[in-house]
Amino acid sequence: VRMAELSRTTGVPVATVKYYLREGLLPPGTSMGPNQADYGDDHTRRLRLIRVLREVGELGIAQVRQVLEAIDTEEVSLHNVLGQAHHALGPTREPNVVSEELQQAKADIDRFIADRGWRVSAEAPARWTLAESLLALRRLCGAEGPEIFTPYAEVADRIAAAEVSSGPEVASRAETVEWMVIGTVVYEAALSALRRLAQEHHSALQFGRAIDQDHGRSPR
Amino acid sequence: VRMAELSRTTGVPVATVKYYLREGLLPPGTSMGPNQADYGDDHTRRLRLIRVLREVGELGIAQVRQVLEAIDTEEVSLHNVLGQAHHALGPTREPNVVSEELQQAKADIDRFIADRGWRVSAEAPARWTLAESLLALRRLCGAEGPEIFTPYAEVADRIAAAEVSSGPEVASRAETVEWMVIGTVVYEAALSALRRLAQEHHSALQFGRAIDQDHGRSPR
Repeated sequence: VRMAELSRTTGVPVATVKYYLREGLLPPGTSMGPNQADYGDDHTRRLRLIRVLREVGELGIAQVRQVLEAIDTEEVSLHNVLGQAHHALGPTREPNVVSEELQQAKADIDRFIADRGWRVSAEAPARWTLAESLLALRRLCGAEGPEIFTPYAEVADRIAAAEVSSGPEVASRAETVEWMVIGTVVYEAALSALRRLAQEHHSALQFGRAIDQDHGRSPR
Repeated sequence: VRMAELSRTTGVPVATVKYYLREGLLPPGTSMGPNQADYGDDHTRRLRLIRVLREVGELGIAQVRQVLEAIDTEEVSLHNVLGQAHHALGPTREPNVVSEELQQAKADIDRFIADRGWRVSAEAPARWTLAESLLALRRLCGAEGPEIFTPYAEVADRIAAAEVSSGPEVASRAETVEWMVIGTVVYEAALSALRRLAQEHHSALQFGRAIDQDHGRSPR
């Protein structure tokens, strides 16, 4: 199809498509003469993926490039692509300065993950994110062990098991990897949003009387 | 205590403390003479909170200011503070341009939330985040109803119920609100990190044979 139709079916403006082509995020189409090129299904799928990463994942161009490179490197195994994509997906990243107490928190998290029997790369950036969360809780609430994360880990385990097994049945390598990346970005955003909504709901239940009074209604 | 000790106990550099004072994020200490001021427990707690928002929540100064203003506005009810804090905590925000299909997704999400019986403000920005996630899935995978979020909603409900009821038993209004904000930021980061780790683990289980082959070992 021509660029105009590619833009229409994906909802990405022509100027943005041209920008992605210049940046090499999108491979060039098949030349059909001067200033004319033909784009196929691969282009449509790639553009949709970029759009999700940009809009839902709120990734910058450099991060999008990293994720796409992980997807496109054929010699990387499916499982390692997921790790590389996670790496690129941020904001989980290794801190610049590692204080002694952060190092201690990281060691506690590593033990926590090992105790759960999770097979996770030693370099997974999410380990540092968790360590920083643990350290923040320690600073704020005093001594806390990584066990405070146990209920969250159980929930995460259940969700991830369902997600990994629910990928498309028959799929090319590229499709499977795209599915994983999309799942990470879209459902992470959805889960965070749902948690906030549920918090608001339970806060309404718990402090509901005060809310009704705020609005001048009689408490139930 | 003096500024040097405030800096030491909170781990925030003196230059940064001064910056927060200039920006009004931290109230001035009690003057003890020219270039000398005394800081109390409120300052310590506030500084720790700012640090969590900056480092774990990755918020900008303007967002931190918004969250602190929500906390400090005494006439706002506890429940509404949570809503305001969520609003400031981003990246959940209303989109600039609302397309017709996003409007449709938003309507579907509103119905989904109403069907669950959740008491949630009509303006909650997380509604838009969810609508964008739903729209992304629709573009990528074809027609999807909001029911695909049901397992995530159930998990979010369970987590939020535990979180809201686990706040400090006897606490001032300021402490309760701080607890909620910290819970939102720290556990959101922790949950996202744990989900990625669990994904990696389940991906290893599912594609484990391929991984072992990658490393030249014989498959089990």
